[in-house]
Amino acid sequence: MVQSYADKQIKLFSLNANPEIAKKISEESGIPLGKMSSRQFSDGEIQINIEESVRGIDVYIIQSTNYPVNNHLWELLIMVDACKRASANTVTVVMPYFGYARQDRIAKSREPLTAKLVANMLVKAGVDRVLTLDLHAVQVQGFFDIPVDNLFTVPLFARYYMEKGLSGEDVVIVSPKNSGIKRARALAELLDSPLAIIDYAQDDSDRSEGYIIGDVTGKTAILIDDMLNTGRTFSEAARIVKEGRATEIYAVASHGLFAGNATELLDAAPIKEILVTDSVASKNPHPKNIAFLSASKLIADAIIRIHERRPVSPLFAFNNPNKEK
Amino acid sequence: MVQSYADKQIKLFSLNANPEIAKKISEESGIPLGKMSSRQFSDGEIQINIEESVRGIDVYIIQSTNYPVNNHLWELLIMVDACKRASANTVTVVMPYFGYARQDRIAKSREPLTAKLVANMLVKAGVDRVLTLDLHAVQVQGFFDIPVDNLFTVPLFARYYMEKGLSGEDVVIVSPKNSGIKRARALAELLDSPLAIIDYAQDDSDRSEGYIIGDVTGKTAILIDDMLNTGRTFSEAARIVKEGRATEIYAVASHGLFAGNATELLDAAPIKEILVTDSVASKNPHPKNIAFLSASKLIADAIIRIHERRPVSPLFAFNNPNKEK
Amino acid sequence: MVQSYADKQIKLFSLNANPEIAKKISEESGIPLGKMSSRQFSDGEIQINIEESVRGIDVYIIQSTNYPVNNHLWELLIMVDACKRASANTVTVVMPYFGYARQDRIAKSREPLTAKLVANMLVKAGVDRVLTLDLHAVQVQGFFDIPVDNLFTVPLFARYYMEKGLSGEDVVIVSPKNSGIKRARALAELLDSPLAIIDYAQDDSDRSEGYIIGDVTGKTAILIDDMLNTGRTFSEAARIVKEGRATEIYAVASHGLFAGNATELLDAAPIKEILVTDSVASKNPHPKNIAFLSASKLIADAIIRIHERRPVSPLFAFNNPNKEK
Amino acid sequence: MVQSYADKQIKLFSLNANPEIAKKISEESGIPLGKMSSRQFSDGEIQINIEESVRGIDVYIIQSTNYPVNNHLWELLIMVDACKRASANTVTVVMPYFGYARQDRIAKSREPLTAKLVANMLVKAGVDRVLTLDLHAVQVQGFFDIPVDNLFTVPLFARYYMEKGLSGEDVVIVSPKNSGIKRARALAELLDSPLAIIDYAQDDSDRSEGYIIGDVTGKTAILIDDMLNTGRTFSEAARIVKEGRATEIYAVASHGLFAGNATELLDAAPIKEILVTDSVASKNPHPKNIAFLSASKLIADAIIRIHERRPVSPLFAFNNPNKEK
Amino acid sequence: MVQSYADKQIKLFSLNANPEIAKKISEESGIPLGKMSSRQFSDGEIQINIEESVRGIDVYIIQSTNYPVNNHLWELLIMVDACKRASANTVTVVMPYFGYARQDRIAKSREPLTAKLVANMLVKAGVDRVLTLDLHAVQVQGFFDIPVDNLFTVPLFARYYMEKGLSGEDVVIVSPKNSGIKRARALAELLDSPLAIIDYAQDDSDRSEGYIIGDVTGKTAILIDDMLNTGRTFSEAARIVKEGRATEIYAVASHGLFAGNATELLDAAPIKEILVTDSVASKNPHPKNIAFLSASKLIADAIIRIHERRPVSPLFAFNNPNKEK
Amino acid sequence: MVQSYADKQIKLFSLNANPEIAKKISEESGIPLGKMSSRQFSDGEIQINIEESVRGIDVYIIQSTNYPVNNHLWELLIMVDACKRASANTVTVVMPYFGYARQDRIAKSREPLTAKLVANMLVKAGVDRVLTLDLHAVQVQGFFDIPVDNLFTVPLFARYYMEKGLSGEDVVIVSPKNSGIKRARALAELLDSPLAIIDYAQDDSDRSEGYIIGDVTGKTAILIDDMLNTGRTFSEAARIVKEGRATEIYAVASHGLFAGNATELLDAAPIKEILVTDSVASKNPHPKNIAFLSASKLIADAIIRIHERRPVSPLFAFNNPNKEK
Repeated sequence: MVQSYADKQIKLFSLNANPEIAKKISEESGIPLGKMSSRQFSDGEIQINIEESVRGIDVYIIQSTNYPVNNHLWELLIMVDACKRASANTVTVVMPYFGYARQDRIAKSREPLTAKLVANMLVKAGVDRVLTLDLHAVQVQGFFDIPVDNLFTVPLFARYYMEKGLSGEDVVIVSPKNSGIKRARALAELLDSPLAIIDYAQDDSDRSEGYIIGDVTGKTAILIDDMLNTGRTFSEAARIVKEGRATEIYAVASHGLFAGNATELLDAAPIKEILVTDSVASKNPHPKNIAFLSASKLIADAIIRIHERRPVSPLFAFNNPNKEK
Repeated sequence: MVQSYADKQIKLFSLNANPEIAKKISEESGIPLGKMSSRQFSDGEIQINIEESVRGIDVYIIQSTNYPVNNHLWELLIMVDACKRASANTVTVVMPYFGYARQDRIAKSREPLTAKLVANMLVKAGVDRVLTLDLHAVQVQGFFDIPVDNLFTVPLFARYYMEKGLSGEDVVIVSPKNSGIKRARALAELLDSPLAIIDYAQDDSDRSEGYIIGDVTGKTAILIDDMLNTGRTFSEAARIVKEGRATEIYAVASHGLFAGNATELLDAAPIKEILVTDSVASKNPHPKNIAFLSASKLIADAIIRIHERRPVSPLFAFNNPNKEK
Repeated sequence: MVQSYADKQIKLFSLNANPEIAKKISEESGIPLGKMSSRQFSDGEIQINIEESVRGIDVYIIQSTNYPVNNHLWELLIMVDACKRASANTVTVVMPYFGYARQDRIAKSREPLTAKLVANMLVKAGVDRVLTLDLHAVQVQGFFDIPVDNLFTVPLFARYYMEKGLSGEDVVIVSPKNSGIKRARALAELLDSPLAIIDYAQDDSDRSEGYIIGDVTGKTAILIDDMLNTGRTFSEAARIVKEGRATEIYAVASHGLFAGNATELLDAAPIKEILVTDSVASKNPHPKNIAFLSASKLIADAIIRIHERRPVSPLFAFNNPNKEK
Repeated sequence: MVQSYADKQIKLFSLNANPEIAKKISEESGIPLGKMSSRQFSDGEIQINIEESVRGIDVYIIQSTNYPVNNHLWELLIMVDACKRASANTVTVVMPYFGYARQDRIAKSREPLTAKLVANMLVKAGVDRVLTLDLHAVQVQGFFDIPVDNLFTVPLFARYYMEKGLSGEDVVIVSPKNSGIKRARALAELLDSPLAIIDYAQDDSDRSEGYIIGDVTGKTAILIDDMLNTGRTFSEAARIVKEGRATEIYAVASHGLFAGNATELLDAAPIKEILVTDSVASKNPHPKNIAFLSASKLIADAIIRIHERRPVSPLFAFNNPNKEK
Repeated sequence: MVQSYADKQIKLFSLNANPEIAKKISEESGIPLGKMSSRQFSDGEIQINIEESVRGIDVYIIQSTNYPVNNHLWELLIMVDACKRASANTVTVVMPYFGYARQDRIAKSREPLTAKLVANMLVKAGVDRVLTLDLHAVQVQGFFDIPVDNLFTVPLFARYYMEKGLSGEDVVIVSPKNSGIKRARALAELLDSPLAIIDYAQDDSDRSEGYIIGDVTGKTAILIDDMLNTGRTFSEAARIVKEGRATEIYAVASHGLFAGNATELLDAAPIKEILVTDSVASKNPHPKNIAFLSASKLIADAIIRIHERRPVSPLFAFNNPNKEK
Repeated sequence: MVQSYADKQIKLFSLNANPEIAKKISEESGIPLGKMSSRQFSDGEIQINIEESVRGIDVYIIQSTNYPVNNHLWELLIMVDACKRASANTVTVVMPYFGYARQDRIAKSREPLTAKLVANMLVKAGVDRVLTLDLHAVQVQGFFDIPVDNLFTVPLFARYYMEKGLSGEDVVIVSPKNSGIKRARALAELLDSPLAIIDYAQDDSDRSEGYIIGDVTGKTAILIDDMLNTGRTFSEAARIVKEGRATEIYAVASHGLFAGNATELLDAAPIKEILVTDSVASKNPHPKNIAFLSASKLIADAIIRIHERRPVSPLFAFNNPNKEK
């Protein structure tokens, strides 16, 4: 049951992408979810009505922008517009999953920079602040000129694996692609473990197979990535790591999208457990060895800290569960 | 076959909402459609790649924002972003159908103004000019501070009915709801016919049925509206006009969306012919007595005039086909 | 006498267009009018000096922008500039009458959109919020991206006529032109009366006279419009309704400008009573059968609600005086 | 008769403040004045219609913003709005007289900065460039981030007086108030004459009379200011200079407003000739010893240079007529 | 010792340009200086870290932008950026000395307007308000659309000289160049003394020497300017005033930069005492007859008044020390 | 000698950071360098004067923002301001080296995002386009909403090493830190060579030394990074690779800053040759085994292509010199 947070100057609203995490954030924070309706007409247009006053209120809108991303983004933009026109004091969007984040660079000529476009659209619609979780690239903060609080998931994961006894030299942290090494490095540091990387020589027909840089032999491997989308990155990496004679293989990602036949691929891969947060409420089936770690407490704490104007940084600290004892 | 328009400073691109009208506009204008790809990933994200240079070019992007409106809008915004970053000289969006246009007022407290939001998003993404067809409310032009050319369809319709011999006192133009009377008035003027209105006393339980204001007895009635969406407005109006003893009933709308079971409703209504333009490429079935009037020539002429910096206003003139003879 | 509203964080200032309504708003709200001077030099330039501190204050500036509209608008813009530079916390402009509101569309090629220009100028000068009364077109709210509270006068009028016993089937609400039907429909609904419309076939020499759509015979007609400017619309409509054998004719408008020889025209028309609010302090003579309904209580209540961050929507409710008994 | 300037990409429009100088600028430049109408309704609202296409055109709008300044400013803003919405390529406002320019500083607490407000309004309305004449303070250029070309009148005046034989040590240039010394210094330099200043100790009851700093005895004095408004500055300065035993007194100002009873005052003052440009078309009577120097050639040359993208600076050069011989 | 100001919603930070005045402002206001680090790498890049939370805080950043002005400006901009991204409620920059202020006009073709550029950069970086001291030109306030409080130093100076017995007819206030007369006029008024001006005929080879306009014979002269930069203006003026047979010469400037060999020049000039505020912490040697008047109390009072939303204007009042007795 | 590029609509200016590369770009492109002066006063303020007209011109300003970065940035911003106010048509800044680019993320709480700040400052000053070389992070393109052309140096380097016979399996490309792997991957791909990474477990006292992930034994190692700043990254990596028994070690960086005692460190490291482009004109001494590859032809080609509105992408193609034969 939701306990009542004393300050009535704050209201929390959930849109349709992930009502489950919104409910948990509400419970963790003690702030009830505000009343509103959001429905889609037969022509696809979304109509929103806020059913309680937001005049002078600090509004927090919870919306993950996973599939169908375009609907979820418009629902979010329209809600922001409604709040601003209804005289909300500030509007913070809480995006446990920030869609389009991978389109953060111009890889080929004449490509859009869609992550920046999303940032621009949010700001123009009237957003005053963004709270998100493990952005694909930290530079995306610089796509905004409003404050962006980017919560880190690596300490959550480190604590989880430490409690399982997975740390130190017997474990190897593996970045399943050559661009995610910073995240793997961060986990390796907290677990005091070495690092390996799966590299792909993209356009070379002779070396089309990925290969390991570093040593995994005889170690428990933890593959880490930010998004688990089609499952291909993890399943291929698991296969390579297996060939490299790792003993057991874990995989962890902040955002579990499970698009297409991801679950099928992952069920076939030699992965003992796949850990994700609840940032995305995917309607797709989950792999059989899935484990969830809720980010709702982390997000709720951040909302309260932001509202009370206390620093968010203490939430990033890592408390080694082994040393607590 | 597309003849080549001489000026190479202009390029035309079609997005995915209505490739049929884009093809026709290309043919009518002699400007070939530019090469690009736009695909949607399994997580719903759209990726666009423009496959020919647009550096320094005046780009015209054709996109109707009908169902699924949110996808079509994001596809449009992303394409605009790509064009601007690829150094297009100007970007004009050609929207034969402008979605969300009905959300142009705050009818109840705390509603969004989504039509304005759409305008703001387009401008922020980098649009320099909008070319559209029969906006739901002309005031929407004022939602923009960039030039908006709003093409009128009433002269097209007037000419069509005149050529059928439908004009003068034997015909009555009927606004099927009390808010669309300006459009009916415009058609009445060109056809030299009287006007009637279907009125609904919205919240009154005793008078829930609509009724006619004005006289339709013994006349051919032409119902006119801007959007044909669920078909309810036209089918109900046709029933009332029929009861008012109109002889024959025509219906005309600029934008044929045919959402939900519109076609079923319309097939059951006493309407002889339903006329729409090709602004919307609906995937829904059409009523059996449908007729199409292409807006492609009108739009192509407008594009050429805009590009050649000649006035668009001559396109709004009505040439009475009876007087031409 | 003005009672003192407790919160000193709010200040009310009146500019020169309508000091009478400002005084009443001050009395109704209990907020005294702030001290300031605004004088015009011999070269027409306006100089404003605010004579008490507004640092950190929520300032409400009362100004109707009727004749001479350009002076009143500049006086308003200059006052807004002075408040912002003097570190006011927020600036709300209270415009009982919003001038230039009819220039909200581009009717002919190359016309300005002056209502949007006014909106842009206000926002650029630093206005944070607008409070106005019965906007000519509700879409004008969308010309702003700041909150706009548009107060409705129809419930005031409905209550007035109900108290006179004017309601139900014996009364007919008449829109004196074909573009104002929404307002007539709203009054008809509250009074439970039918609707009629005066239509003009504008460019047709054979039907230059207006005519009634709908039935007024034997009924008391209430003509309703938003602005009473030159008086021509009402006097012509009254004549037509009289010919249509209405028994008595009332006329009501939110804003009584009485420009040119309006009063002469109206005194000659078969109208029993002309009702307007006090939104405009016209220096022109008034017709002999004028009645005023002050909007000051409505506006004062809205100011207090906005300042106390309570919803404004309850002010829009209609309390049927007959059912109260 | 206007000769036709070859480039049709440019159009010149005159608003209502000073059609005389507009006509001369048109003649000097060979660019005909475009067709438009601007009329004021009985409620004071201005309606503008541009009667020829401006699509893609570089538009120059000539408007002085003297009395009634608020009307002239709104007429200008509305015309700019109309041009931008009608797809003009660029809009340059040509303001021979820039009203409200004296309100360029906050002299007392809580004063507006109206000159900056005017700049902001012009830019927001869509102005791309300003061309003006002898701004009250050169810092006003910095109120804009668009290019501002400020034409100097001092070389015109210097040449005029040189041709009259007024130069060198027998002449003294007098700044009639202690804030306009820069302008007096510039004229002194071109005429090779010394300088004097009239100083007023503003708030000191004992020294309320102005007095001369510097020496005028036995010299011909030329009083110079930017604006001749109420005439008080010049008439008082002339009296003081006369007492200081100057032989003859001339007065010159860029902008002749002649507000209030200026002419009466000036006719009573010991001034031999009052020289002004035609930047302001005042409807007030002129003093009997008035002389006009047209700025139209200077402005026309500047327009042509701007349009042809040639530097404007050569227009600021001073050609000593005595040395030409 | 710093007493604690009760309100913890405000924090004061000092950057590296003038830590001395920051310390004094902190002491005078009772607001401790916040913890932060700002260091410059070997490649010249500045890195800032704010070492205490500023979330929701009203931050005041003290930075004079004297030599090396470009470093000090970037340090300021970077600190503003850090504060805004760290969710400061408001950011006020306190600039005892505002560098680049003299570049406030376009003197020659194609010059930048660097003072406006600085204003634009500050605002774009996120500054909400500026507090400064004796701006070079008051019009620079109009380069901003945020509130700018410009504190006056003349009352400080007047009180200082009055206490020394320097006032009335035996004293003459001298503007050492023809553009600073307004400041001299203000001091003259408070001291009830006459005025004189040093004029330079800039481009005239025959009169290259400056000369006095007005009379200094037998009087104590006080030279007043806003900036004491290279010392040339004061040393040359002192020489001229000396030749004009003034008895004693004082010089006063708000900002003592002492660039280049200023001190050498001033030590050689016939000036009895040179008075400046501590707005600039110059690392250059000072002239031997220097006197300092701290502006820290004035600035501290202004900060407290701004924060408490009380008017700043009482700080501009001049209390005649002679009349106090 | 500079051949004259035919189109006079373009002008190239060099500021003071790297006149050598500006001269070469001018020669390669055939566009002469425009005349201007930029000098610094004794108080550190920069004054710029453009000595030829830029009215209507497409201006390209060449400035690297290396040490002293703050001076070079202000010189750039001031020049941009001058160009815009002097009515340049467009302003493109050509930054062979983009300073502050590493401050592109918020690594610790309350850090600024200085790379974004730089982007915002450039855009606000009036920059229309940026042309740069090998940005530290490609996401920095998304800090701008104007077009940014980011030229790649890897193809230049690949060709250089291929011509030396360094390619294929006998070579290993080494990323000297775990964050630069994308750049190493790109070079590996063109040279058809494997990859290795130097990893540092930053906060772990037991594993403070870096170590190699991947295999370098018996291979020629090429270390690649974007910036060569203090030399520590390369010298440490060279030591580790040497210990890993690489045969020979090359190092290549796009930008050679050589800050602090970089040259000393590098001269002591086991590196056979250090290759950099001429993007930075460092005043520091260079290591003895330095080699330069000019980026001037690449930049000149890009300028011409941008100006002629031809795609820049062909410049990114890699022509294998071995296959050309």
